[in-house]
Amino acid sequence: MSAIPMMSPRVEQRSSLIETYQRVRARSETLCAPLSAEDCMIQTAAEASPAKWHLAHTSWFFETFLLKAYRSGYQEYHPAYPYLFNSYYEQLGAFQRREGRGFLSRPSIEDIYSYRAYVDECMIELLHDADETVWPSVRERLEIGLNHEQQHQELMLTDIKLNFSVNPLRPVYRGDLPDLPQRLAPAIHWQEFSGGIQQIGHPGEDFAFDNEKPRHRVYLNRFCIASRPVTNREYLAFMEDGGYQNPAFWLSDGWATLKRLNWSCPLFWEQIEQDWLQFTLAGLRRVDLDAPVCHVSYYEAEAYAAWAGKRLPTEAEWEVAAASVPVVGNLYDGGYLQPVAANADGGVLQLYGDVWEHTASSYRPYPGFKLAPGALGEYNGKFMSGQMVLRGGSCVTPADHIRASYRNFFYPHERWQFQGFRLADDIS
Amino acid sequence: MSAIPMMSPRVEQRSSLIETYQRVRARSETLCAPLSAEDCMIQTAAEASPAKWHLAHTSWFFETFLLKAYRSGYQEYHPAYPYLFNSYYEQLGAFQRREGRGFLSRPSIEDIYSYRAYVDECMIELLHDADETVWPSVRERLEIGLNHEQQHQELMLTDIKLNFSVNPLRPVYRGDLPDLPQRLAPAIHWQEFSGGIQQIGHPGEDFAFDNEKPRHRVYLNRFCIASRPVTNREYLAFMEDGGYQNPAFWLSDGWATLKRLNWSCPLFWEQIEQDWLQFTLAGLRRVDLDAPVCHVSYYEAEAYAAWAGKRLPTEAEWEVAAASVPVVGNLYDGGYLQPVAANADGGVLQLYGDVWEHTASSYRPYPGFKLAPGALGEYNGKFMSGQMVLRGGSCVTPADHIRASYRNFFYPHERWQFQGFRLADDIS
Amino acid sequence: MSAIPMMSPRVEQRSSLIETYQRVRARSETLCAPLSAEDCMIQTAAEASPAKWHLAHTSWFFETFLLKAYRSGYQEYHPAYPYLFNSYYEQLGAFQRREGRGFLSRPSIEDIYSYRAYVDECMIELLHDADETVWPSVRERLEIGLNHEQQHQELMLTDIKLNFSVNPLRPVYRGDLPDLPQRLAPAIHWQEFSGGIQQIGHPGEDFAFDNEKPRHRVYLNRFCIASRPVTNREYLAFMEDGGYQNPAFWLSDGWATLKRLNWSCPLFWEQIEQDWLQFTLAGLRRVDLDAPVCHVSYYEAEAYAAWAGKRLPTEAEWEVAAASVPVVGNLYDGGYLQPVAANADGGVLQLYGDVWEHTASSYRPYPGFKLAPGALGEYNGKFMSGQMVLRGGSCVTPADHIRASYRNFFYPHERWQFQGFRLADDIS
Amino acid sequence: MSAIPMMSPRVEQRSSLIETYQRVRARSETLCAPLSAEDCMIQTAAEASPAKWHLAHTSWFFETFLLKAYRSGYQEYHPAYPYLFNSYYEQLGAFQRREGRGFLSRPSIEDIYSYRAYVDECMIELLHDADETVWPSVRERLEIGLNHEQQHQELMLTDIKLNFSVNPLRPVYRGDLPDLPQRLAPAIHWQEFSGGIQQIGHPGEDFAFDNEKPRHRVYLNRFCIASRPVTNREYLAFMEDGGYQNPAFWLSDGWATLKRLNWSCPLFWEQIEQDWLQFTLAGLRRVDLDAPVCHVSYYEAEAYAAWAGKRLPTEAEWEVAAASVPVVGNLYDGGYLQPVAANADGGVLQLYGDVWEHTASSYRPYPGFKLAPGALGEYNGKFMSGQMVLRGGSCVTPADHIRASYRNFFYPHERWQFQGFRLADDIS
Repeated sequence: MSAIPMMSPRVEQRSSLIETYQRVRARSETLCAPLSAEDCMIQTAAEASPAKWHLAHTSWFFETFLLKAYRSGYQEYHPAYPYLFNSYYEQLGAFQRREGRGFLSRPSIEDIYSYRAYVDECMIELLHDADETVWPSVRERLEIGLNHEQQHQELMLTDIKLNFSVNPLRPVYRGDLPDLPQRLAPAIHWQEFSGGIQQIGHPGEDFAFDNEKPRHRVYLNRFCIASRPVTNREYLAFMEDGGYQNPAFWLSDGWATLKRLNWSCPLFWEQIEQDWLQFTLAGLRRVDLDAPVCHVSYYEAEAYAAWAGKRLPTEAEWEVAAASVPVVGNLYDGGYLQPVAANADGGVLQLYGDVWEHTASSYRPYPGFKLAPGALGEYNGKFMSGQMVLRGGSCVTPADHIRASYRNFFYPHERWQFQGFRLADDIS
Repeated sequence: MSAIPMMSPRVEQRSSLIETYQRVRARSETLCAPLSAEDCMIQTAAEASPAKWHLAHTSWFFETFLLKAYRSGYQEYHPAYPYLFNSYYEQLGAFQRREGRGFLSRPSIEDIYSYRAYVDECMIELLHDADETVWPSVRERLEIGLNHEQQHQELMLTDIKLNFSVNPLRPVYRGDLPDLPQRLAPAIHWQEFSGGIQQIGHPGEDFAFDNEKPRHRVYLNRFCIASRPVTNREYLAFMEDGGYQNPAFWLSDGWATLKRLNWSCPLFWEQIEQDWLQFTLAGLRRVDLDAPVCHVSYYEAEAYAAWAGKRLPTEAEWEVAAASVPVVGNLYDGGYLQPVAANADGGVLQLYGDVWEHTASSYRPYPGFKLAPGALGEYNGKFMSGQMVLRGGSCVTPADHIRASYRNFFYPHERWQFQGFRLADDIS
Repeated sequence: MSAIPMMSPRVEQRSSLIETYQRVRARSETLCAPLSAEDCMIQTAAEASPAKWHLAHTSWFFETFLLKAYRSGYQEYHPAYPYLFNSYYEQLGAFQRREGRGFLSRPSIEDIYSYRAYVDECMIELLHDADETVWPSVRERLEIGLNHEQQHQELMLTDIKLNFSVNPLRPVYRGDLPDLPQRLAPAIHWQEFSGGIQQIGHPGEDFAFDNEKPRHRVYLNRFCIASRPVTNREYLAFMEDGGYQNPAFWLSDGWATLKRLNWSCPLFWEQIEQDWLQFTLAGLRRVDLDAPVCHVSYYEAEAYAAWAGKRLPTEAEWEVAAASVPVVGNLYDGGYLQPVAANADGGVLQLYGDVWEHTASSYRPYPGFKLAPGALGEYNGKFMSGQMVLRGGSCVTPADHIRASYRNFFYPHERWQFQGFRLADDIS
Repeated sequence: MSAIPMMSPRVEQRSSLIETYQRVRARSETLCAPLSAEDCMIQTAAEASPAKWHLAHTSWFFETFLLKAYRSGYQEYHPAYPYLFNSYYEQLGAFQRREGRGFLSRPSIEDIYSYRAYVDECMIELLHDADETVWPSVRERLEIGLNHEQQHQELMLTDIKLNFSVNPLRPVYRGDLPDLPQRLAPAIHWQEFSGGIQQIGHPGEDFAFDNEKPRHRVYLNRFCIASRPVTNREYLAFMEDGGYQNPAFWLSDGWATLKRLNWSCPLFWEQIEQDWLQFTLAGLRRVDLDAPVCHVSYYEAEAYAAWAGKRLPTEAEWEVAAASVPVVGNLYDGGYLQPVAANADGGVLQLYGDVWEHTASSYRPYPGFKLAPGALGEYNGKFMSGQMVLRGGSCVTPADHIRASYRNFFYPHERWQFQGFRLADDIS
């Protein structure tokens, strides 16, 4: 039973919303269960926040945008927490710089759990007691808050993976993950689409982020799209053909990045004698050649596509291709926490789950997009420059958090997310 | 008489092409006439190459892509020049890093003029003698080479402006420039466009860069566009209303850039007591409040638009608005070398010349775009990430070098070009 | 009862050495008792290692230089620990870069305590069982190892202070520290010394570091030295007289550092309205105007001296002045963990304890100094460039770890140690 | 005929001082004669100022410290020049940052020569007309000004060498330099000195810099010093024995510098197939194996000494050894502008000229040193931290500018000066 349908207008009941709230909030804590207090504190790069910070920040979000706004007489939990746990909302005042989130041994993890408990208790009271005049706003912000928490659940996993990866002991986050299915990736076939005027963007009334709206028309040429993402085996062929040595395949900024960061393979890969291994949430594992390649940047995806004589799909093409495909796949709820080889059938495979798929599209506002007023307007809109759109969710995305219109975005050099790609092509 | 029509198929005669070649090449040297040998050498930022380097690089371009390719028995001028004057073509071998272009006291400016004379002599022989089998290729690359030289003519002016600006003596590039017209900017009116399927991209057979092609369909909503760019007076109102102090107006990367570089006004502005002055190619001058604001980055344009409650036009909207407007304006050939106040009439003004206009569009390939093979493929295509499109040319763009489909591109923080913007809006 | 006399030749018995070993080792753990697992992990600057790292590194030192060298059949505790806990001994192989010591959530603090217990057990066996042929080497290295551990005990306190100081919650390391004595600093008087040929360097047979040897002759002019260090009150007068604004007082490198780091007061000071507060191991406290100024760099000490028309003593002058003074003072064992106002009597006060005193001397080898062979030669000798000598120990130095000839050394911009200074002058 | 004896009290006549002034000033211009206007402008590193700047700065020095101070009615040449040509005198107001000295195409080289002519004319008037009350001050500052100009003459040569070296064309400063003498370096013998109380520092009444004073007693152990500097042949043996790969030879800061800057040989060396070449003021030349090694940093000198089992002499030892040796050698006036092999005789060879010799001594004030009041106090004193002393002058030091007590100083990583070293040892 997924979270989002629970919140559709038809079944809206306060009690079911409270249940959803409790379920989403509980999962953040479940994700931290395998971690020690020390594990919850590490930050090895500015972009990889400590788990403890995620636990606190998501609570601060409810405190700030719901409790302080709509709960009369609400008593702030701690006067320093807004400074410590505001992420980037400039309109809400000063905050701790991102690079210093790992410097906070205090508040302790126990303090943060107390903070969560306090916020939860107050939130449940609010959900019970809010009168009808504020209820629509409360309900809308609740949905944002829960989706926000789900985003941070994915980040908790990607961040702990990055933070663990630099430790020579190669810590294991979960020793109990299931074995990955052993199967051969099916051959690629090219699914054709007819082009013309299409519509993209979130269509319905249920929850979507502001950046998925408004639904709008686009004109597309005829195109075809690969039936599955590029695999590790295919990517290795690119590597072995000198892919990381030949600037002709690379965007200028990509080649400069490769040189600056000494890239020669995907993030988390290491070669021991002849074998390619990769660091996973289950520790160091042999690379599964049939699984989608993962932890490659946009620049690497573009270079591979140039080498292969193809291109990346635009986000509109991707969304058109995905519109009629059921939202199922190797998502967080499947439990692998690692991409797996496609299970052949006749359609376009693995659109959802496994890896976020790089697209050829810059992250820009849709025609008619309007910023929300106030600090919540900073949620998505102010990031609409310099980043690229990714689609489809990954093996660590909560299953009830993804949809065809969902736009994720990262800088073109970033690769600590579960990022892969599929190819597309023109039809002349 | 403009350069490009000379090259149209109908009047194609080798002698007229030679004449065009000589005229374009001569202008580069005319631009350097007011400069001393020392002036020709300064480089104060990685992006602002010395004039001497521009003179040499444009010659290297003809030597590399025409003389070495099509002139049998061609003798390279100097074995070290490919290393020194290749700008960024990775496929042609190693080259001097960009930051070190100002370190070259040798070759001297006289050596570079000799290099130019040698290349010119060989080029003219080639244009005379090339047999018909190679002529189409020679002619095609000649057009690229001449357009390339024109791009560098604009850069020579923007770079000398930046390089002079850091000198406390405030050197004057040209003391003989005409006075700017003194007039009030007309009020803005909003020109409406109907939207639907439109075509953009270069339509004809005459020269255009690869990045302007292929011409293709786009779907546009109805929109309106301002009849002229934002003026200095309007921009000052933004500044005085705290525009540079309020993060709510800014993209996240823009705000970070503002903080890092301590921005509080356009580049080249300085306040002396109550007066705002700006450094120009004629030295330090009072800011003309009716002229378009210039030397603002994409980030500043976006912030202004947010403050004004409008938005920037997309490049497709801009091109649709410009398609039927004659290509005239305050361009290099007009001789001001500085934006001037609009001269009111009934249409959309100043689309061409005065300032390159920021658009809301990331610089990305058009649908169906294909990289040229070989090193010439690096000309435009590899820069298609991280940059934004600007349209319309500026007061230092050669008049025969601009057209409706022309796509210029810079990083969103850059502002040493003559960059301004006009606003657009949705029509609901 | 101090540690070092226990190791003097006269009372040398293995059992007393074992007792000393246990006592010194236990103190490291006592120092960590007020810290949580999270506190033990933070590193906010490259130079401030986590407490956990200190606990492990000191154990690695015994393992590497004693157990592996002299304990036959010794089984290494963990194959990754040499990489993780070697600090800087290049001759022993690769090691974790210093900046990444705070990234190690694993091994956990419990793992480190197990490591310590294992090393302790093996060490005690070694001290019992080592045969007479190796005993002199074992005993010599034991002394180095214990003194090494004492150095890290001081660093644990200075590092936790720095690491806590950046936390806006201003954590308290020890809430149970005694109140500081409230008394007025006595007036300075100037103690004269006659100069001529003097001897400095460690004189006896008991333990001293290699950098304190050999004892050697120096020629000194007549000089006088202040009877106590500069106080906070005196330093405030310098600040209020524009000390941090006037480059005439500063060394060139010092002024550049002040500008780069925006210095305007000692480290850990902050002004709240009119009051100067300082962060201490007991949390935020009012500055005691009569206590020695602390957490000032060598550059600041030199600037103050220039402002005051005096100079810093050389290390030879300091040692001559201290030679006949009993080694007592406000050291770690006194329990304040903060400098306190001098308790007037007739002599030169506070030479030992309170603050390490900056001297005018670069840290260079004494005449006749020879590096020890092998990796232990890297202990002190390779740091003999670019640093300055400090003398006398501080309020966090173990009382049995300081002596007149002891040479501490830091870079001239560093100030997170308990560093202060006293003035000296020539006698004409 | 040397400059300094001309200024001795005995022959002091204004006319001879004027002659000396003219001779010293003329040499700066002679040094620039082989340079084009463009050559005079390059700056490829913060520490290597353009020749044009040196020409102007030395004139500013006379203008500031003599003409403005003692010439009544003196009219400043240009109001912006103090900003442009003050090097580092904080007490005289703001100045152009060092890294931007190469950005000044204006003032032109002709403007600077006019500035020099104006200053010279006014200076000669001052030297004629100054009345007896100010004459002692004028004369004292004149000597500083002339010695200052001589220092910059050496820097002009080292800077043009560095600035030319990065140009792939390998420009030749002087094509007319004499061939170097071809001879074998004599074997080293070790000259013994008895130690005890010695005196160092400038002894007489004639000119010396403030940092050479006061003359004072030091106590030295017995020592011996090598009869000549280390040669290129000897240094190559160190390189071939893995000197740049083995951290055991290196100071910690030296090893970090080697890693950071990728050092594997002296500056200006390059290996082409089997041959070692070096860039010189005469262009690229084969390394003369018998000449002293040159362009090595203090760190490299220390590493070589550690490898050789010796040490560097202290500056006191060097001065004692040099005290009775005539001040002759391969200096600027000899015309080689490159170190040459020693010409064997019985004593300690090459103390003066060829290469500045690294010593083991930090650059610190002598006992009793006092800063001069005012801005001239910034000349030497504020640099007395972080740098090391070098002695003896080099092949580009004016012959009348060096003496036994002369203290030069550079940062331990710097090596663009003509820096080499000789070894010393203890005598037990």
